Amino acid sequence: MADNRPIGVFDSGIGGLTVLREIWNLMPDEGTVYFGDNGRAPYGTKSKSTVIRYSLQNMKFLEEQNVKMIVIACNTASAHAYHSLTRNSSVPVIEVVTPGAIAAAGTTRNGRIGIIATKGSVNSGVYKEAVERYAPAGTKIFQQACPLFVSLAEEGWWDNDITAAVCREYLTPLKEEGIDTLVMGCTHYPLLSDAIARFMGPDVKLINTGVAVADVVRDTLNSLDIASSGGGEVLRAFYTSDEPKLFEDVASPFLGRGLPAGTKHFSTDRYEV
Amino acid sequence: MADNRPIGVFDSGIGGLTVLREIWNLMPDEGTVYFGDNGRAPYGTKSKSTVIRYSLQNMKFLEEQNVKMIVIACNTASAHAYHSLTRNSSVPVIEVVTPGAIAAAGTTRNGRIGIIATKGSVNSGVYKEAVERYAPAGTKIFQQACPLFVSLAEEGWWDNDITAAVCREYLTPLKEEGIDTLVMGCTHYPLLSDAIARFMGPDVKLINTGVAVADVVRDTLNSLDIASSGGGEVLRAFYTSDEPKLFEDVASPFLGRGLPAGTKHFSTDRYEV
Repeated sequence: MADNRPIGVFDSGIGGLTVLREIWNLMPDEGTVYFGDNGRAPYGTKSKSTVIRYSLQNMKFLEEQNVKMIVIACNTASAHAYHSLTRNSSVPVIEVVTPGAIAAAGTTRNGRIGIIATKGSVNSGVYKEAVERYAPAGTKIFQQACPLFVSLAEEGWWDNDITAAVCREYLTPLKEEGIDTLVMGCTHYPLLSDAIARFMGPDVKLINTGVAVADVVRDTLNSLDIASSGGGEVLRAFYTSDEPKLFEDVASPFLGRGLPAGTKHFSTDRYEV
Repeated sequence: MADNRPIGVFDSGIGGLTVLREIWNLMPDEGTVYFGDNGRAPYGTKSKSTVIRYSLQNMKFLEEQNVKMIVIACNTASAHAYHSLTRNSSVPVIEVVTPGAIAAAGTTRNGRIGIIATKGSVNSGVYKEAVERYAPAGTKIFQQACPLFVSLAEEGWWDNDITAAVCREYLTPLKEEGIDTLVMGCTHYPLLSDAIARFMGPDVKLINTGVAVADVVRDTLNSLDIASSGGGEVLRAFYTSDEPKLFEDVASPFLGRGLPAGTKHFSTDRYEV
């Protein structure tokens, strides 16, 4: 039976827009409600307990928007909070770590996979475990936290000399390990993919988890028989916990197009969780 | 009359520790309660309304700790929230913008002053106005937002090739304007002062606002006759809105020494303001 309610998507801020764009591309008939927690961003440097609390609050807000599914479009929140969210959610929850891990496991030829992510994601070990679960036995996995990448993406320094130097600093150990597959395990990183690809060279495949996540969203909607019937007006609502103008000023490069007008403010910190 | 209650100090996270160390250095008998809002850091990229709300909540927490004075050890919070705080505070409030501005106005010889700060501080115009208020007529003021500096300071890249390149990117316009005085208008920046000083050259004086703020704290305590009488045990309490361990792991370089044990967790977002 078709379900024309929107899909809820949240992130610590704007990085999740790189996931939203892939959902729009693959499922143009699905309505979406996006919440960016810009007032408390970033999540990547924060602790597990804090990220769980914020994620539960964000989920509560999306549930009140009458969504049929929740997509955690943030790797750090997925790594720390997925189990807390599924236990408390009234609708299916999709996270971004597993789809990226499956894509990486299916891509590697030499059994050497790199993962770049925030400190929070790397220290959680969740990404590494997910790749291990899906990759052939004996696959070697190498992780690297790249905290500066988020600032570089937000500053708009996507491919300059400084970004190249930061890539060299963070990625040299992964290159020396001879990986052939690199998971961009943070939704900010696709903006730096040209610089990352150039440093790693043509033999290393980059995994953009947004594409893999959109596939999982579509498959889940279909298997639960809750895809939209299409035809009506498609909702594309945006909320942010900081000022809408700040959000709108930086959103476009992440979304890959101009943002529809009318982002609204909402602070989820008022929710008791 | 002596007042042996502690001084309350807050910042978005750890940057304010560069102010706290100067307060400790100058007034070893004064107790302090420090609150770092690490769970919502940084403030420098967030809007005025959000920073005001957070600052009022942080102040409320410090007032409940029975402090005799509140120091806003964060330039962005000082720029956005000082007036809101003084209107609502039961104790004197000290901010960090004016002391740095006065120090800069008294330092320049050629009447050309640079200010580096967060986007929030720069866009507020508050720093520029403060320098204009105290500097001789005709003084030229040049501002530059340096968002990457915060990440570099927190990553521990205080003086490497990447930091040098980022300094060149941000500071070249100020150098070309021939400034002789540069205000480090963000409490993270003193950690990068070697790299900043090397790029700017020996003729440019750097203003570390922490030192200037500590002087104002001491003068205010004395003029209000509320300095500590000394002699007793000196309170040095720390609270953070994220996990204490995360706070303690990164605090030492900012404080310039090891942190006393026992940082406690507290989330000020529960306060209605």
